Amino acid sequence: MRQLVESARVGHLGTAGPAAHVGPDPPAGPHPHVVPVCYALVGDTVYSVVDHKPKRSTRLRRIANVEATGRACLLVDRYDEDWTRLWWVRLDGPARVVDDAAEARRAVDALVAKYPQYAEHRPSGPVIALDADRWTGWP
Amino acid sequence: MRQLVESARVGHLGTAGPAAHVGPDPPAGPHPHVVPVCYALVGDTVYSVVDHKPKRSTRLRRIANVEATGRACLLVDRYDEDWTRLWWVRLDGPARVVDDAAEARRAVDALVAKYPQYAEHRPSGPVIALDADRWTGWP
Repeated sequence: MRQLVESARVGHLGTAGPAAHVGPDPPAGPHPHVVPVCYALVGDTVYSVVDHKPKRSTRLRRIANVEATGRACLLVDRYDEDWTRLWWVRLDGPARVVDDAAEARRAVDALVAKYPQYAEHRPSGPVIALDADRWTGWP
Repeated sequence: MRQLVESARVGHLGTAGPAAHVGPDPPAGPHPHVVPVCYALVGDTVYSVVDHKPKRSTRLRRIANVEATGRACLLVDRYDEDWTRLWWVRLDGPARVVDDAAEARRAVDALVAKYPQYAEHRPSGPVIALDADRWTGWP
């Protein structure tokens, strides 16, 4: 599973909004959110960074969700029309916005090493760390 | 955006667990969950079905989450090493497990029409409906 996650070029980061506040009927459950991300795996920590790729807003939902809930998951998978060739790996665990400057620098170094695109344009946005404590996958 | 979503072959369905119960410190936020899905778009409703593709368990988290929170999102995107060619579309909205037999049959018919793989092995599991009330995308 590690080899698949290390070599894949894109993953899907899931976060959730905080528990619903008291409000109109029916009460809204926590809102799930999924974004495609480039990421680097360092040990069991998945780093991704807010970069210059297309966003709808600079006030990003993923950041607010991680701050509010402290959780994320990363799904890495391959689709194939031959359904016997599908695979997926999911990493779940606590997540945080990195506030230590040295850790953020190491995370961005790992991303630059994996993606030449980042070498041309080193990302400077907030870094999200997912400290995976559970790996699930198929096959 | 509709054309991209209609023609894509795989999407990523995000759900979230219910709000954390009172527990140890720190309290756990709602747990996000992401799975790859085959889906059919009918109007603004995204249907997917629990099928015979690889699962870790038949007691599926996605079903429990939708039942508990009534929410889901679907992300459809394309990765490309040329980052000027990326695109994504996300549909958000209320979600439900379909309990009307006629609606479930129509949903599976739409899935069979889109995926020849389902014609050989018509899926019989629970159908999830995401009634999208918000489309977001790039570019």
